[in-house]
Amino acid sequence: MESTNPAALQPSAERMIREAFGAQPYLRQLGARIASLALGRAELTLPFRAELAQADGAFDPGIVATLAENAGRVAAQTMLPAERAALTVEFKVNIMAPGKGEVLIARANVIRSGKTVTVCRADVAVQSGGSETPCATSVITLLSTAR
Amino acid sequence: MESTNPAALQPSAERMIREAFGAQPYLRQLGARIASLALGRAELTLPFRAELAQADGAFDPGIVATLAENAGRVAAQTMLPAERAALTVEFKVNIMAPGKGEVLIARANVIRSGKTVTVCRADVAVQSGGSETPCATSVITLLSTAR
Amino acid sequence: MESTNPAALQPSAERMIREAFGAQPYLRQLGARIASLALGRAELTLPFRAELAQADGAFDPGIVATLAENAGRVAAQTMLPAERAALTVEFKVNIMAPGKGEVLIARANVIRSGKTVTVCRADVAVQSGGSETPCATSVITLLSTAR
Amino acid sequence: MESTNPAALQPSAERMIREAFGAQPYLRQLGARIASLALGRAELTLPFRAELAQADGAFDPGIVATLAENAGRVAAQTMLPAERAALTVEFKVNIMAPGKGEVLIARANVIRSGKTVTVCRADVAVQSGGSETPCATSVITLLSTAR
Repeated sequence: MESTNPAALQPSAERMIREAFGAQPYLRQLGARIASLALGRAELTLPFRAELAQADGAFDPGIVATLAENAGRVAAQTMLPAERAALTVEFKVNIMAPGKGEVLIARANVIRSGKTVTVCRADVAVQSGGSETPCATSVITLLSTAR
Repeated sequence: MESTNPAALQPSAERMIREAFGAQPYLRQLGARIASLALGRAELTLPFRAELAQADGAFDPGIVATLAENAGRVAAQTMLPAERAALTVEFKVNIMAPGKGEVLIARANVIRSGKTVTVCRADVAVQSGGSETPCATSVITLLSTAR
Repeated sequence: MESTNPAALQPSAERMIREAFGAQPYLRQLGARIASLALGRAELTLPFRAELAQADGAFDPGIVATLAENAGRVAAQTMLPAERAALTVEFKVNIMAPGKGEVLIARANVIRSGKTVTVCRADVAVQSGGSETPCATSVITLLSTAR
Repeated sequence: MESTNPAALQPSAERMIREAFGAQPYLRQLGARIASLALGRAELTLPFRAELAQADGAFDPGIVATLAENAGRVAAQTMLPAERAALTVEFKVNIMAPGKGEVLIARANVIRSGKTVTVCRADVAVQSGGSETPCATSVITLLSTAR
């Protein structure tokens, strides 16, 4: 299902998405970054800091959900023309393991791109000491709207 | 379905839940608070700050999800004995309106409390100028585990 | 949240919804019926038959989901003008107890009605010997489209 | 994520799963079959019949959900010892296209197998005239219980 050679974005589209991402105060404050972008794909990363943790030292499930949802939103945006925005209608997250590690990574793919509705899947993993552990999977349903 | 007179918690149970909540670095940093607790119920509040926003000035959907999930987790905990903890297995959030306002409020009820699985519903609203607007609804599925 | 006096539908709207429901081969074959309709509400019922069961004699979870989803779809339709149809985008069902009994009942409410997106909640119970046991809760997200 | 050479099941495990599946009255009545089984995998098929349709001639979304949920349940069962059963806690289905065609196919993979909780993904497609069209994706959360 996941093609190995996703198409690159137009530079203007990539710039626009990165600028919009950078203009989100909450994501900036969290420290989330776009690690890579391609048509129908987005990878976000978020380095661990003590204030992003639950009591057990793992990333809070809310942070895991936030990164997954934003990865889905960015991936959806890669399929839309500049004058349309992806708006999250609903999302669902399965927490599969505690997110304990140095970097949280959310990888989203568009699995259905329609005129009105886009559906993305986002898998979240945590990097720790050079290896990666899956910690969540999510599905995000978005609406394409005029900006 | 929502009883009008939820039973109060034992003071020791309430104290334990409030302490555990206060020990979560991420929730503390966000500024989330337990506004009220009862058997099978929890209400959390979170005052707006500019760094919790999306570009449009509304609470980020990730914050909305975080407050909903944590409200569900706290509500689930009210039904469990002290030696057991509620662990989120999955949750699902429908974003129904942008969360624009001064205070975000998540109200969770336990709708199914079993030996192993607890299911909660959490509705999220935003207060603005004295009135409340619903902005999301969510369902949270939790596992009861030994601490 | 659930008002006690939901508004009645226009007779022409009610007739149209009942006719559309009756024209669904699968629902007819199952034996599902509209027990009541009001603005933003629908109650569907389905009598038990041995061929709707799992091996343990309870209604199959797929049947529970089918009744919930259709109740949501009918409730959504009550809020739409005649020239628009409610199309299910996604739904989520929590199975809370085995559906063992004589009649399955799904009660759906519209909890958000927008120009494009409608969100419904549907609770499913099973009647057995005069009493009712909740067996599932679900959320249904629908798109309003031109017929 | 999807390995290309899934491990075969022990013949006794496969026989047991097929017998349990065949003993479900509702699935038998629908005409659902296990097309293939492997460790952590299940593929179910369901030939179209007029009485499984909505008014537009597509498989009813409830049928799509039923096949997805059962595929997830069977896939989960392949990872469990004979004395434990997989019980569906919740599932979520995104309907991505109308299921119009001759055969509905649900392919499920276990994406997280724990002592208590199993998470499966099931993708549903419809075959029509020799080609396949994806029509839904779903996530199923199951509990492992003693039989």
